[in-house]
Amino acid sequence: MAAKPNAIVAQSGGPTTVINASACGVIQEAMKSGKIGKVIGATNGILGVLKEDLFNISAEKPETIAGLKSSPAAAIGSCRYKLKKMEESKADFQRVVDVFKAHNIRYFFYAGGNDSMDTADKVNKLAAEAHYDLVCMGIPKTVDNDLACTDHCPGYPSVAKFVAVSAMEAGRDTEALCTTDTCTILEVMGRNAGWIALAAGLAQREPQDAPHLIWIPEKPKSRKQMMNEVKAVYKEFGRVFIVVGEGMTDEKGNVVAEDKSALSTDAFGHAQRGGVGEILKTWIMEDVGIKARAQKPGTNQRAAMHFASATDIKEAYLCGKMAVKNALKGVNGKMVTLVREKGRQYKCTTGLAKLSDVANGEKMVPASFINKQGNHITKAMRDYLSPLIQGQARILMGDDGLPQFMRFKRKPLKTKLPKYL
Amino acid sequence: MAAKPNAIVAQSGGPTTVINASACGVIQEAMKSGKIGKVIGATNGILGVLKEDLFNISAEKPETIAGLKSSPAAAIGSCRYKLKKMEESKADFQRVVDVFKAHNIRYFFYAGGNDSMDTADKVNKLAAEAHYDLVCMGIPKTVDNDLACTDHCPGYPSVAKFVAVSAMEAGRDTEALCTTDTCTILEVMGRNAGWIALAAGLAQREPQDAPHLIWIPEKPKSRKQMMNEVKAVYKEFGRVFIVVGEGMTDEKGNVVAEDKSALSTDAFGHAQRGGVGEILKTWIMEDVGIKARAQKPGTNQRAAMHFASATDIKEAYLCGKMAVKNALKGVNGKMVTLVREKGRQYKCTTGLAKLSDVANGEKMVPASFINKQGNHITKAMRDYLSPLIQGQARILMGDDGLPQFMRFKRKPLKTKLPKYL
Repeated sequence: MAAKPNAIVAQSGGPTTVINASACGVIQEAMKSGKIGKVIGATNGILGVLKEDLFNISAEKPETIAGLKSSPAAAIGSCRYKLKKMEESKADFQRVVDVFKAHNIRYFFYAGGNDSMDTADKVNKLAAEAHYDLVCMGIPKTVDNDLACTDHCPGYPSVAKFVAVSAMEAGRDTEALCTTDTCTILEVMGRNAGWIALAAGLAQREPQDAPHLIWIPEKPKSRKQMMNEVKAVYKEFGRVFIVVGEGMTDEKGNVVAEDKSALSTDAFGHAQRGGVGEILKTWIMEDVGIKARAQKPGTNQRAAMHFASATDIKEAYLCGKMAVKNALKGVNGKMVTLVREKGRQYKCTTGLAKLSDVANGEKMVPASFINKQGNHITKAMRDYLSPLIQGQARILMGDDGLPQFMRFKRKPLKTKLPKYL
Repeated sequence: MAAKPNAIVAQSGGPTTVINASACGVIQEAMKSGKIGKVIGATNGILGVLKEDLFNISAEKPETIAGLKSSPAAAIGSCRYKLKKMEESKADFQRVVDVFKAHNIRYFFYAGGNDSMDTADKVNKLAAEAHYDLVCMGIPKTVDNDLACTDHCPGYPSVAKFVAVSAMEAGRDTEALCTTDTCTILEVMGRNAGWIALAAGLAQREPQDAPHLIWIPEKPKSRKQMMNEVKAVYKEFGRVFIVVGEGMTDEKGNVVAEDKSALSTDAFGHAQRGGVGEILKTWIMEDVGIKARAQKPGTNQRAAMHFASATDIKEAYLCGKMAVKNALKGVNGKMVTLVREKGRQYKCTTGLAKLSDVANGEKMVPASFINKQGNHITKAMRDYLSPLIQGQARILMGDDGLPQFMRFKRKPLKTKLPKYL
């Protein structure tokens, strides 16, 4: 009797709070199916496949695997390695298929953004050309919420929830100290799209609540325009709370954080330290004459498991599970999508989209989600986002008062191929 | 029958997650005592007293007052206004006593750090000289944990817990992406003392866990020393996670964030944007040659009610309550302290210290809490801190998936004195 086929699960790109929940869905479903031999982890995404750096997840303790649901970042390991066009990276693609063959891997589950879906799609096509039976399934992942074909991306709801509570809490701090520390700027992720910055808008239930202004790359503004908005808020409330996306652009379409006139370089010609928040802080002190401070949660926003959305975790898990279920039914070359059912009560099921459609698409923030002034959200955005951030993640706490996150033992598979160069 | 005497409760300095819980203790205990007329809030601390900007907290809804326990920042309003020496600010001190007289205020409950205790002490002495019966009681508050005479300060445990979970979570992100985003620097508060940065040390349960290095003002290091520590960690784990206090100093005792040679000034001669984290990031990229990112939670660390320590909230409330209980028993000129009982099981009661002793003291991090290398914590620090961060704060959540924080209606008291100039 031939050995059962094996499956690889891999994670790619910037981690999120719930990409491990997706991995958990894949692993648990694959293990219980009885149709898959080993579930294998590829350390650091496609890099792990190329380097044949693989480990046996099936040999991990069940509680370690279950712990994925409440552990942030990417426990299998992620990477930013991008396979280029097929013509330029033919050797890499071929190597991937060779590694799959060497380890009898017939299923490839890849969680990532549109670059990862592109990779999965190309690997799939190359395998087909080589007449190697392979099923490639994508699992959506990105805090940026910009994947096409899905209502929303697992990972986005949790970053949204953390950014909103951060604006709410720091907003109260600014309110309390407004006689001196009058303006606070919260710089959040989002190089090309304002999805994350806009999420902070949920924190504002009445006009005096933070954030008062949200600035996003989709709505470029000149320094003068921005400062006029600050002055107007300051006049009304005596304090100003701004959320800005890191990729905020000026009226010429230039990224503010790279504005050379606003920046200086150091003795070595290195670009100025700090991002848009620090630049805005200087502008506000100079042009408005009030004290401002800039803060930047950085990777903490996409790793905040301690305040993750239970809805997000549930849906991320579901995406992983459905990828396996569909793969075992013969579906191939698809990414699992989240489908919002019609009706007043939020209900979410899954669907399927072609990997190539996801790879070549991008979901922009709908115009109806941004207010007329281009500096806050509308009710439509609230209605879209609010159901996604419901529920508190349950995390296991240690005796020391802090969360317990899992970590794999990583029992390596023996390599069977020459070293990858 | 003479009107019952009134009480003022006021908040001062940088807000914390639990200073409102202390206010709640004062207000609820004062209202239920039957011995106090109105409980009055002074908007923005001593500034509110000087400006006679007062509001009637007794007229607020009971649920608003109860909501203080789970609302961050300073709901009464805080300030950074500091009364100088008695000789220089005699008029200000006299004004405080005049306002108290005008509103029949016989109790002054002041939550703050050592400057605030100094103010309360001086007001108290001036009132005594003027034969005005007044009871001044201090309530400890500071995220910096540097108040003398108390085992720890309400506010510190919650910032400690948030900073530790932040290091733990962002540490997992760095671990997942170490092939490209190899080093993360988390810049936390602490201008003069490393209490907050050291708290992040709790996140490290085994050597590979973040944070690998903690740099604090008490342990100055040269750029070379710091970079050597980074190289050693990188060699061992292939990634580096650093927590640094904002006031970190170099071998000459200069604050790194103000190091002019490391910094450039902009066209206007303004100091460089960003703090020590951004400077370290540049140093690491230059000297170690690995990609680094800096993040800075800013006021979010001291306002993180969503992950506050339940122990901290309980103790902060207790401090407020005991201030009133003692005041009504005839105690005067004291700050409530937290006293750790002996024994293996953590138990905390309250004591009293002279306001002047607190005002003139400062609690340094004990040498036994810092490791030999001066870059991490010891077991003694873990044993000290771990009991303080136990328990999850219960917060009221709104239908939109975010916390509900209270805000006072602020029914102003009629002014009775000429305007403060």
